[in-house]
Amino acid sequence: MVEALPITGTFIGEIQADYEIPDQNWSDEVWDADFAAMKAVGIDTAIIIRCGVRKKLLYPSEWLMKNAGCERPRRDKLQLFFKLAEKHGIKLWIGGYYSGNDWMLATYDVQKEMEHMKRSFAEIWENYAKNSPAFGGWYLSQETGARTAYNVFECYKQVGAFCHDLSGHQTLISPGISGCNNGSLTSKYPPAACRRIAVTPDEHREMWGNVLDYVKGSVDIVAFQNSQVNRDTQMRDFLKVNYDVITANGMTPWTNIETFELETSLRTFPPISFECLLDKLEWAHQAGFQKAITYEFAHFMSPNSCAMAARNLYGLYKDYFKK
Amino acid sequence: MVEALPITGTFIGEIQADYEIPDQNWSDEVWDADFAAMKAVGIDTAIIIRCGVRKKLLYPSEWLMKNAGCERPRRDKLQLFFKLAEKHGIKLWIGGYYSGNDWMLATYDVQKEMEHMKRSFAEIWENYAKNSPAFGGWYLSQETGARTAYNVFECYKQVGAFCHDLSGHQTLISPGISGCNNGSLTSKYPPAACRRIAVTPDEHREMWGNVLDYVKGSVDIVAFQNSQVNRDTQMRDFLKVNYDVITANGMTPWTNIETFELETSLRTFPPISFECLLDKLEWAHQAGFQKAITYEFAHFMSPNSCAMAARNLYGLYKDYFKK
Amino acid sequence: MVEALPITGTFIGEIQADYEIPDQNWSDEVWDADFAAMKAVGIDTAIIIRCGVRKKLLYPSEWLMKNAGCERPRRDKLQLFFKLAEKHGIKLWIGGYYSGNDWMLATYDVQKEMEHMKRSFAEIWENYAKNSPAFGGWYLSQETGARTAYNVFECYKQVGAFCHDLSGHQTLISPGISGCNNGSLTSKYPPAACRRIAVTPDEHREMWGNVLDYVKGSVDIVAFQNSQVNRDTQMRDFLKVNYDVITANGMTPWTNIETFELETSLRTFPPISFECLLDKLEWAHQAGFQKAITYEFAHFMSPNSCAMAARNLYGLYKDYFKK
Repeated sequence: MVEALPITGTFIGEIQADYEIPDQNWSDEVWDADFAAMKAVGIDTAIIIRCGVRKKLLYPSEWLMKNAGCERPRRDKLQLFFKLAEKHGIKLWIGGYYSGNDWMLATYDVQKEMEHMKRSFAEIWENYAKNSPAFGGWYLSQETGARTAYNVFECYKQVGAFCHDLSGHQTLISPGISGCNNGSLTSKYPPAACRRIAVTPDEHREMWGNVLDYVKGSVDIVAFQNSQVNRDTQMRDFLKVNYDVITANGMTPWTNIETFELETSLRTFPPISFECLLDKLEWAHQAGFQKAITYEFAHFMSPNSCAMAARNLYGLYKDYFKK
Repeated sequence: MVEALPITGTFIGEIQADYEIPDQNWSDEVWDADFAAMKAVGIDTAIIIRCGVRKKLLYPSEWLMKNAGCERPRRDKLQLFFKLAEKHGIKLWIGGYYSGNDWMLATYDVQKEMEHMKRSFAEIWENYAKNSPAFGGWYLSQETGARTAYNVFECYKQVGAFCHDLSGHQTLISPGISGCNNGSLTSKYPPAACRRIAVTPDEHREMWGNVLDYVKGSVDIVAFQNSQVNRDTQMRDFLKVNYDVITANGMTPWTNIETFELETSLRTFPPISFECLLDKLEWAHQAGFQKAITYEFAHFMSPNSCAMAARNLYGLYKDYFKK
Repeated sequence: MVEALPITGTFIGEIQADYEIPDQNWSDEVWDADFAAMKAVGIDTAIIIRCGVRKKLLYPSEWLMKNAGCERPRRDKLQLFFKLAEKHGIKLWIGGYYSGNDWMLATYDVQKEMEHMKRSFAEIWENYAKNSPAFGGWYLSQETGARTAYNVFECYKQVGAFCHDLSGHQTLISPGISGCNNGSLTSKYPPAACRRIAVTPDEHREMWGNVLDYVKGSVDIVAFQNSQVNRDTQMRDFLKVNYDVITANGMTPWTNIETFELETSLRTFPPISFECLLDKLEWAHQAGFQKAITYEFAHFMSPNSCAMAARNLYGLYKDYFKK
């Protein structure tokens, strides 16, 4: 039997999960049960993807309410997640604020948004992370795969360095790939054009070689997303290229084995089939990775998910990995 | 804590809910349980959105089977809803027949469709409503937000007056808004164009000022839909304008706080997140409204819904409003 | 009461159900329960739609792994389905391999793909079907409705004859209709254009008269799909034409009464409403059919489905047919 890399980390999409992936309306009790379910299949790492999006905040950030037009949240969900992480022995990583503005616009004020990220990270460090044994590190949540995302690369460099100064913890990024399933292509072009425009493994290696070299010292761990390339024909190659380009730059290679399915007729994000998930986990192992995270447990492989196929996936996964 | 307006009314989408919002295949027992669930969270008003659509009828209308090409229904669901409304102490409003034809076409025979509406309302009054303590009033189910929907405005005026003569009960309308999330825009134009074309609060106020003035005396209650404008940037303004324009014309202001989410990447109508629902209910209270209805309990906030996130929403809602 | 034809057969979409219709991640135990649920509502026929798609196989086909680039499957699901069919007294039909290539391309090597189909059918006969009392027959899984699908018609003729020689069992096809709801139209043209381009009942009769005459002797049973034509205005006519054209060519008429809904605003394949399903089953009875199959029980009308509306449909169906 081919060895498969187990999933030991997951994003938590709370707050940003309302545009492509609908909110599940979980109570605190469900979140508690879900942390227990994560732990039961070996997950030791949870990454809150963003601590705030547009006007919505996960915690009452004085800075963002005053300077970014955010609303005072009705309750402090960041506190809840720290409490649950401590209770269940899971390390909690925290992602940065996202204004909803387009980082690719030349006119975009990236300095202002980086300031928002730094200030809220500082608040979170002071008020939550510093005193919690559960705190794991910082997540820089810009996820572009675009070659010209200079603002994003600059953010990785500057905000990553800031995080190191702030607390000494590691920084993580999870970039996309400009592949044929990338939403920025599929929303504009028909499938055949997407395949023509899509990045090749060699182009991807060259581009990210340059980017990672540029952000060296600021970024510690890289976990590329994987659903944006064709599973049958490209994914193995891209996994290897990703492993090579990350390790060649002295960073720690994780891989984001997404548990939704993008190769569908509509982008409705159903949970992946267990067979296809296993394929990816075997390929990740073969490519050399030693840690897989996923986007994300709660919607796509949880026994508490609103999608029944996710609940079933949890059963198959747990049984296979004998947890 | 900011006060939130509770939801005390809901549409019932049965029969029309097969194009955008799939049928849930509920048995009579589930409907019974659902009326109980409505009542348990304070809902006292249920509005059957249409008593017939195209060939399908909620009750065996001799007029519509003879004159509108409708099929004899296998069973009388209108009778079921009256029985359940009586049992659970909920007022039942009845919506008019809809042929499926395009009311906006200049060549459309609106007189014929209004005749169908009147005749079936008369049948319903005679055979169901007259003798039921549960009957609440009449719903005029044309829901356009378009400035040039003259046929619809004429229908409000004529059919509304007919309803008053028929039974003396009140009439209700729930118009859409030609906002940036309106399906008639989003199905044709990209998001940026929709935002440009969309009606402004001032244009909306002027247009509906004229329309409501025209239908005065025929329409008693107005409950604008609310999902068709941007939640973050426009909804508060539109809620206030709606309240003003309705009360300025001497009508009763209700508001239709829809419980599905339109601000998604695909129009798949997921249940709204509780946070966003609460935002809307607080804004509705601030705008002055005293009664909120919703489209609709059964799919989007019921413990019997086929969508698990709706079942979860019911729990969060019930807990918040301490019912 | 109008008589309705009961559904006594279903496809099993396992392996191919990952593009339009997501995988449900069922364990063996769920499949066992589902065969029992099928039987409980009178289903005696299960048709595995394809024994392999692209690189994925339902059984370890030495031929396809060696000659078609298929991967060795982690387990033998064909064996499971034979075991369950025997246990529950259901006849199992087996569908052919599909490479994922476009059969309509003039340059497509149909001879090679037919060779794959024949070789895998021979393997299946030898290793599974020959010794199983559950084996029912062969399914030729190309499902086009296009007039110019010459490759497909040739496949029906040659592979059908091969099946007869191989085991003497009957062969089944389930072609689509080039109607206004056909995905090959709706993915390219707006609704009004689809209605213009769509095949008429008379064109359909003429085309399939020629095709069925051509494949006579190779194909025994024909079960046209039915969702691709307008339900209100066309389906009755097409059902009658289908019955006529099949029987006129001396073949056995089955009908594929699909249990998903295509007449929706997005092609998300929700379970059909029970009312609309009953309409179709009554019309099928009136058209003369004596056996209805469906695509498919597991997703759209099973008590184990990941779609709650399917679970509800099962209850309504079972109650109606007093099983």
